[in-house]
Amino acid sequence: MSRQPYKRRDFLEDVVKAGAAGMLVWPSLTPFIPKDQMTVNQVIAKILAELPGKPLPETVDTLKTGSGDQLVTGIITTMFATVDVIRQAIKTKANFIIAHEPTFYNHPDKLDWVENNGVAKEKKALLEKNQITVWRFHDYWHMMKPDGILQGVLIQTEWLAYNPQSNAVFQIPPQKLGEIIQHLKDKLHIPHLRYIGDPSALCQHIALFPGAHGGEKQVASLVSGQVDLIVVGESPEWETPEYIRDARALGHPVSMIILGHSYSEEPGMGYLVDWLRNKIPAIPVKHIASGEPFSWG
Amino acid sequence: MSRQPYKRRDFLEDVVKAGAAGMLVWPSLTPFIPKDQMTVNQVIAKILAELPGKPLPETVDTLKTGSGDQLVTGIITTMFATVDVIRQAIKTKANFIIAHEPTFYNHPDKLDWVENNGVAKEKKALLEKNQITVWRFHDYWHMMKPDGILQGVLIQTEWLAYNPQSNAVFQIPPQKLGEIIQHLKDKLHIPHLRYIGDPSALCQHIALFPGAHGGEKQVASLVSGQVDLIVVGESPEWETPEYIRDARALGHPVSMIILGHSYSEEPGMGYLVDWLRNKIPAIPVKHIASGEPFSWG
Repeated sequence: MSRQPYKRRDFLEDVVKAGAAGMLVWPSLTPFIPKDQMTVNQVIAKILAELPGKPLPETVDTLKTGSGDQLVTGIITTMFATVDVIRQAIKTKANFIIAHEPTFYNHPDKLDWVENNGVAKEKKALLEKNQITVWRFHDYWHMMKPDGILQGVLIQTEWLAYNPQSNAVFQIPPQKLGEIIQHLKDKLHIPHLRYIGDPSALCQHIALFPGAHGGEKQVASLVSGQVDLIVVGESPEWETPEYIRDARALGHPVSMIILGHSYSEEPGMGYLVDWLRNKIPAIPVKHIASGEPFSWG
Repeated sequence: MSRQPYKRRDFLEDVVKAGAAGMLVWPSLTPFIPKDQMTVNQVIAKILAELPGKPLPETVDTLKTGSGDQLVTGIITTMFATVDVIRQAIKTKANFIIAHEPTFYNHPDKLDWVENNGVAKEKKALLEKNQITVWRFHDYWHMMKPDGILQGVLIQTEWLAYNPQSNAVFQIPPQKLGEIIQHLKDKLHIPHLRYIGDPSALCQHIALFPGAHGGEKQVASLVSGQVDLIVVGESPEWETPEYIRDARALGHPVSMIILGHSYSEEPGMGYLVDWLRNKIPAIPVKHIASGEPFSWG
């Protein structure tokens, strides 16, 4: 069976052509789906069937381009559906990108977030020309039990053994901050990161917040727990980092590691490949790390 | 004349004591102000008299601790009234800190932003014990003509000559991105920064946004102008940096430099010292750079 895209519109056109040739058939509302293929909607339904709660009434987990009726030729999971990731998807003939973060540079992916945004338009045109569907899998991946992103990070950092319940706050055997930094750089393939603290300080009570949870949630975890190290993706600089700076100046031995947003959650989108494979065995699923755009100088 | 703090409450107590001794005087609503001294409120009024428009009905530029009636012994300007800056203020016997950014780790400086925040409580106690008044000077400093922060940065980067109108978007003589990075590191005393772009690319149309203006404003400047380099304090990583990454992948030669929030605006709080001196010549005014809390590893 070909893995070329076969879309609902194509099917309807075929049906209409058949009708014009005298074979009158009322087009079905469901397109014809080859036995070992699935539509985008069917893949999403398979994923959402795993939700412990109900789907959200409002969510950013929507299609950003393409169609739910498109037959899926292959899936790419990634943090950001960057132009580079899209080009790699085209090369591998995968037409469905599942991205954790926005495609058009703002949380709700509004195309008119900034007027006359030529870059967003070019990107959309690239996706449409190549019939790539992009779905954001953010809220629902975090809602899974365990949180898919956190689980991926715990596996890749080899911290899952210390935290089998996949809690945001957990305990590891005491280690120097400097050793933890090196461990995270090695395991998460991070060339550079920022931190606050004394590299020789022993840490064992960790609050782990991949991504951008915001200072309120981050600081609340520090206030309520016996946390001595918070590890985040990113944080507004005037929130958690300033709290940490003052806490340390007041004699509280608490440290912070800022991994970078993309690096911090990428393992969760890698883990999604394993999570998906036995649910949709017929469709090739591959992870492409979008990485972060920064050079450090 | 002593520069020890003399507060409205002390004055009223003196008046009440005098009354108890038989010298009945109705306490004035205005405290006695020695000739060469000013209260916090008087300093703020001097500053706000320079506003080109009306004071804002809602603003974060409020007193965070202390009293508007306190006699000012000395002023410290800074980006963040950190515990360390407060201790330095105490040492120099200055009792009025003018800070550009929040004191209690959230934009409106809500003390109950996070419940049971012991660090915020300890910091507040430190300020109260030492009778230090903190005023945030954020919205109004940006509202001045020219914007006080931008003006300070333009002076310190020696870019004011190319941009005498203090616009956010302006032109410099063509320079390699790598040279501009080095220039900014040298002039703003920044040990490390992040950037996106090719160090050998020539840049000349700059959008300069010290602080955290948010991706919408930053990206709008890139879309509307002929900008080839945006310089910011910080940005949510999924907004401007991802826009820049995609723009570059689509062939648009645009670069980005992320200075760090505190470093990027500190020159504006340094410039405030010069701006204030001839308005309040009798009061000592000093700038303390709060710097950023990060180590880079």
